[in-house]
Amino acid sequence: MGIRIGILGCGRIGQVHALSIARVSEAKLVAVGDANPAAAGACARRFGAEVREPSAILASKDIDAVVIAASTPTHCDMIHAATAEAKAIFCEKPIDLSSDRVRRCIEAIDRAGIPFMTAFNQRFDPHFGALRQRVAAGDIGDVETVSITSRDPSPPPADYVKGSGGLYRDMMIHDLDMARFILGEEPVQVFAVGSNLIDPAIKGAGDVDTAAVILTTASGKICQITNSRRATYGYDKRLEVHGSKGMLRVSNIPENMVERATSAGFESAVAQAFFLERFEAAYLAEMRHFVEAVSSGRKPQPDAQDGLRAQLIADAATQSWREGRPIKIED
Amino acid sequence: MGIRIGILGCGRIGQVHALSIARVSEAKLVAVGDANPAAAGACARRFGAEVREPSAILASKDIDAVVIAASTPTHCDMIHAATAEAKAIFCEKPIDLSSDRVRRCIEAIDRAGIPFMTAFNQRFDPHFGALRQRVAAGDIGDVETVSITSRDPSPPPADYVKGSGGLYRDMMIHDLDMARFILGEEPVQVFAVGSNLIDPAIKGAGDVDTAAVILTTASGKICQITNSRRATYGYDKRLEVHGSKGMLRVSNIPENMVERATSAGFESAVAQAFFLERFEAAYLAEMRHFVEAVSSGRKPQPDAQDGLRAQLIADAATQSWREGRPIKIED
Amino acid sequence: MGIRIGILGCGRIGQVHALSIARVSEAKLVAVGDANPAAAGACARRFGAEVREPSAILASKDIDAVVIAASTPTHCDMIHAATAEAKAIFCEKPIDLSSDRVRRCIEAIDRAGIPFMTAFNQRFDPHFGALRQRVAAGDIGDVETVSITSRDPSPPPADYVKGSGGLYRDMMIHDLDMARFILGEEPVQVFAVGSNLIDPAIKGAGDVDTAAVILTTASGKICQITNSRRATYGYDKRLEVHGSKGMLRVSNIPENMVERATSAGFESAVAQAFFLERFEAAYLAEMRHFVEAVSSGRKPQPDAQDGLRAQLIADAATQSWREGRPIKIED
Amino acid sequence: MGIRIGILGCGRIGQVHALSIARVSEAKLVAVGDANPAAAGACARRFGAEVREPSAILASKDIDAVVIAASTPTHCDMIHAATAEAKAIFCEKPIDLSSDRVRRCIEAIDRAGIPFMTAFNQRFDPHFGALRQRVAAGDIGDVETVSITSRDPSPPPADYVKGSGGLYRDMMIHDLDMARFILGEEPVQVFAVGSNLIDPAIKGAGDVDTAAVILTTASGKICQITNSRRATYGYDKRLEVHGSKGMLRVSNIPENMVERATSAGFESAVAQAFFLERFEAAYLAEMRHFVEAVSSGRKPQPDAQDGLRAQLIADAATQSWREGRPIKIED
Repeated sequence: MGIRIGILGCGRIGQVHALSIARVSEAKLVAVGDANPAAAGACARRFGAEVREPSAILASKDIDAVVIAASTPTHCDMIHAATAEAKAIFCEKPIDLSSDRVRRCIEAIDRAGIPFMTAFNQRFDPHFGALRQRVAAGDIGDVETVSITSRDPSPPPADYVKGSGGLYRDMMIHDLDMARFILGEEPVQVFAVGSNLIDPAIKGAGDVDTAAVILTTASGKICQITNSRRATYGYDKRLEVHGSKGMLRVSNIPENMVERATSAGFESAVAQAFFLERFEAAYLAEMRHFVEAVSSGRKPQPDAQDGLRAQLIADAATQSWREGRPIKIED
Repeated sequence: MGIRIGILGCGRIGQVHALSIARVSEAKLVAVGDANPAAAGACARRFGAEVREPSAILASKDIDAVVIAASTPTHCDMIHAATAEAKAIFCEKPIDLSSDRVRRCIEAIDRAGIPFMTAFNQRFDPHFGALRQRVAAGDIGDVETVSITSRDPSPPPADYVKGSGGLYRDMMIHDLDMARFILGEEPVQVFAVGSNLIDPAIKGAGDVDTAAVILTTASGKICQITNSRRATYGYDKRLEVHGSKGMLRVSNIPENMVERATSAGFESAVAQAFFLERFEAAYLAEMRHFVEAVSSGRKPQPDAQDGLRAQLIADAATQSWREGRPIKIED
Repeated sequence: MGIRIGILGCGRIGQVHALSIARVSEAKLVAVGDANPAAAGACARRFGAEVREPSAILASKDIDAVVIAASTPTHCDMIHAATAEAKAIFCEKPIDLSSDRVRRCIEAIDRAGIPFMTAFNQRFDPHFGALRQRVAAGDIGDVETVSITSRDPSPPPADYVKGSGGLYRDMMIHDLDMARFILGEEPVQVFAVGSNLIDPAIKGAGDVDTAAVILTTASGKICQITNSRRATYGYDKRLEVHGSKGMLRVSNIPENMVERATSAGFESAVAQAFFLERFEAAYLAEMRHFVEAVSSGRKPQPDAQDGLRAQLIADAATQSWREGRPIKIED
Repeated sequence: MGIRIGILGCGRIGQVHALSIARVSEAKLVAVGDANPAAAGACARRFGAEVREPSAILASKDIDAVVIAASTPTHCDMIHAATAEAKAIFCEKPIDLSSDRVRRCIEAIDRAGIPFMTAFNQRFDPHFGALRQRVAAGDIGDVETVSITSRDPSPPPADYVKGSGGLYRDMMIHDLDMARFILGEEPVQVFAVGSNLIDPAIKGAGDVDTAAVILTTASGKICQITNSRRATYGYDKRLEVHGSKGMLRVSNIPENMVERATSAGFESAVAQAFFLERFEAAYLAEMRHFVEAVSSGRKPQPDAQDGLRAQLIADAATQSWREGRPIKIED
C-alpha cells in the first residue's frame, strides 16, 4: 500500500511535493492542510486528497509521514508535534532561522528515532548528482577548488525578504549545502561580501541582492560562491570542481537546441528559465528517495544535521557580511 | 466533456498515445482494443479505459475519434470503417504501403469530411517546430539546402524489416516528411543509395541498413538525408538548413550537462538514447494538436495528403535504390 | 644549404607558397617568375628573391625544385619542361583540366623519376590531419559514411568561372580528394546535382553555385558532399566521419572566443572568414612536407596519381550533373 | 625609419619581445644586452641585432626606446637610467616589488615626460580586448560581478618563487590588472585566501600554490579571482562579466577542433597548453601599441600608474592572506 503522506502547507513548493508524491508509486497522498483553506482545497482537488487541519494531519492514524512545506516559523512546532506522533518527516529548508531551535528539533528527532529528511533537492538533480558520484569515484583526483554560481530570475518581493533571514540563509543555503556535498570536508571559515545592485527595496528590507563568499576547509580546499537576484539569460545554476587530475562541471540546460548562424555570428537559446523547470527531476528524485528510505527503514539523506550545518554556515556568512571579516564556522 | 477517444492497437506506440491522451485535459480515453487481448487489458488497466473489440470501438456511439496504431496492413480497413462511422482519425504512419490504397482512403476521408491526421510526430518536436517557424519567418532568407541526419540506436529484427516496406518507407519517411515541412516546396526528384554495413540479416530480408538520398525541388533547392540503423553515441537526429542569409540547425540533446576535462581533453555525455525519450514532448504536442483541431472543427495538420506525399517520395527512393538512377516523384 | 626553389606564378597562391618557403629553414627561395613582370617584381622584393623568366627558372642550374602556381592551362608545359630538367615539382591543383594530358604528365614524371606533389593543402590541415590519423588508427572502427561541407565566402567572378572547369573541378575537387583520403577506399560511382541559387552570372558562365554529390565505394561506404559559393557565417568547412564504433568530426574555428548572453540568448563569433586564414598552418605544413621529402629522397604525398584520381571523380561529377544520372568513375 | 629599440634582458620574455619587434614594421631592434653574455649573443644572432652592455644600451644615442625584461630587482635602476637619457620605456611587470620604489620611478618618469608602458600583455589579447570594448560599449549594461580564472600549466621552481614576491604579486597581478580593466572602477578592498595543495616546495618557499580573492569596489561591484599553479587540461584562462543586461565571457581556445563521439560520450581537445601560445597575438599587439604611441607622441596604455595600482592590490592581497582579514587598498 505504500507510505501514506500528509502535506502541511499548500503553497508553490507544497504543490511541487504533491505532484512528486503522485508520481511515486510506493506513496499515497492522504491529506493536505494549510492555514489558508482555499489553498488546501485547491491542492486537495488537484491531487485527489482530503483537506484536514494541519494539527489533524499531524495526529492522523492513517498518515505515516508528513511533508512540512508551511512558512519557516511554523516548522519547529510541526517537527515537535510530528516527532511526538512518530511520523517520518520531510522538511523544507531552512528547518528554522534559529540554530538553537534547530538543535532542539534534532534532539527530539534523535530521541524519537524517526526518519527526517531536509529537502535540499539540488543534491538529487541528475546532473549535480552524477558530478558528485564522479568526484567521489576519484575521476578528478583530490578536490582542490569548487566554484558555484546561482542567479535567480528576479528578486523576491521585499515583504518576503524581510522574513527570509536574508540572501545567505534563504538563497545561498542551497549552494552552501552543495559545497559541503562536493568538498567532502567541512568548511571551517567563511568570508562574505554583499551588495545592493539590483533592487533598492531589498536594501530597504536590510538585505543584499548580490553576494560572494569564499569558504575554506581545514586542509586548504577553497570554495567560491556567487549569488545574484538577477539572471539575465535564464536561471543560472552552475558548478565547477577542480581536482588534482582534472575538472568536472555542470553547465546550464538550454531551453532548446535550435542554433542560428548569420554574418553576425551564432545564436543559441537561453538557459531554462526557472528553478521549478530546472529541478523538476530533482524534486521527484528527492521524494522517491524519502519514500524508499522510510519504506525500507533506512535513514534518508540529507538529514537534520545536514540542515543544521548549512544553516550554521549561512549564519556565519551573514555575520561575515555584517562585520566585514572572516568568521569561523561553529562545530 | 472533451473528445472521447478509442485506441486501436496497444503496442508500444499505442501506449505512447494513451499516455498523451491522459495528459490532454480536453480528451478522454474511453476504450482500447488489440488483436492481442492481453495487450489491450494491460493498456486499459494502466490508463483506466475499457477493453473493446477493435470493430466495436469503430462502431461505438460514445467514441468521437480513433487512434489507429495497429499494424500497417490493418490501417486501410480501419480508416474505411471509421470514415463510415464519421469518427475523427489519428493514424500512425505509414497509412499503407500501397499508395493506391492510400488514395482510396483519402477519397473516403474527403467524402466523409472527417478530420484526419497523419502522425508525423517530429513536426511537433519543440526544437524542429521552432526551427520551422523561424525558417518560415524569414530568419535565414530563402532556403537553399537542407541536411537531415537520422541514426537509429540499433537495427530492428529481420522479421520486422520484412513487413516494413524497407528503410526508405519505414525509417526515412519521417525525414522525407521533415524535408517537405522545411523546404517549403515539393521535391520533384530523388536519388537514393543504400548499403549493408551493419546487420547481414537486414540484407537477407532484402533491405539496406545505411542509406543516403538527394532530393531536389523545381527551383533547385537541395536536400540531403543520411540514415543509419546504427547510432554509436545515442539516437542521432539532426537537421541543418542553409538560406541566403544564414543557417538554422537543431543539434542532439545531451543526456546530461556534466563535463569532465583532464589532460586527455574534454568529455561530455552522449545524446539522449532513444526516440521515445527524444520525442516525448512531440508525442504529447501532436495529440494536443489533434484534440484541439477536432474540438474546434479545424483540420488537423499533417493530413492524409501529407501522409501520401511522403510515401510517394519513399516509394521513389526505394525504386531509385533498386534501379540505380534518379526517379521523378509522382504528382 | 637546403632545397633551392623557384616559383612559377606570383598570384595570390604563389605568394602563399613564397611565405611558406620563407618559414621552412631547409628551403631557400631563389627566383620567382610570372607572365606579369610587376607581379614577379613585387613578390621578389617581398621575399628577397630574384626575378627570372619562367622558362629561365625551369632551366636554372641553381634551382632544385619548382612550385607551379601559374594559371592551369600552363601547368602541363611547365611540368614537361621541369621533368626534362629533373627538377622536383610542387604543382597547384588541378594539374590540368584534361585527364589525358594529366596522364601524359604522369608518364613523363614516372620516366624521369622525379618527386612530384599535388598541392592538396587541406590534407595538411592539423585538424583534418589529426582526424585522418585517428580514423586510420581505428578510433571509430570501420568507416561507414563521410559527410563534407564546403561553403565559400562569396562567388568568384564569372570570368574566372569560365576557365575554371566548373564548380566540381574547381572547388569540390578539394573535397573529392579529402573523401579519398578519409574513406580509405576508392569511390566507384558519383551522383551529382547542381543549382543556381546565388549568382545569375555563374549560370551565364555555364556553371552552378550550389551542389551536392553522393559517392559510393565498392564495399558500400557512402560519402556526401555539399558545396555552396555562399557562406553566411564565415568560411564553412566541416567534415564528419561515422564508423562502426563512433564518429569523428572537425568543426569550424570561431574568429574569437567571446560569448555574450542576454535575455535573447547566447551569441558567439562567426567562423574564420577566409581559406587563407583557415588553412594558414596547412599551407606551411604541405611545403615543409615537400621540402623534407625532396631533401630525404622520399616521394611526397599526395602525388600526381592522387591529382589524377580526384580529377577523374570531378569529371564524373560534372558529367553526372549534366546528364542527370550516376556515373561510374574511371579506373 | 621607425623607433630604434634596445632590449635589456634576453631571457624567455625578452626573446618574445624581440620577435614582436621583428614583426612591427615601424620598429627596429638595434641592440640587446643581458647579464649573461651568451644569452645576449644568441638573441642578437637570432634577430640580427648587436650585443651591447645593458648600461651602454641605456646610453646609446641610436636607441629611442628600451624594453626592460631583466630580473625584477634591476628594473628601478634601469628606469632611472633610461629616464635620465629620455628614452621611452616598455617595462615588464612588476615594475618593482616595493611600491615606494615604484612611486619614485613614477616621479622620475613624470618629471622627464617620457612615454612609459607597463607590459600587461593580456589587455591586448584580441579576445579579452574585444570583451572589454563590448563592456565599455554597454553591451551588458552596468557591470555587477566579474570572475577571473587562471591556472598555470605547472608550478615554477622554488628558487623562482623565493624572489617572485609570491603568487599574488607574480601570477595574480595579471588578473588584478584585468579586474581594474574590466570593472571600470577601482577596487577598494581585497580579501585573499591561499593554500598549499600542489607542491610542498612552494610552501617551503613561503608561498601558496592555490588562491582565491574577492575584490569589492566603492559602488559594490564584486570581482572573484581563482589562481592555481596546476592546470590539468591546458592553460586555463577565463573571464566572465555579468552586467545588468547580460553576460560576456572569454573561454579557453581548444588545441584543435577534432571531436570524437562514441558510446562513452563526446571527447574534444584540451585548451592551448601554454601562455606563450595563448597570448602570442597579445604580445605582438602590445608591442605594436607601444611603438605606435611612441611614434605618434601619444602616451601608451597601461602606464606606470596602472602598474602601481595592480601592485598595491597585490600587496594588499598578500597582506590579507597573511593576516586572515580583508585589507583596504591604498589610494
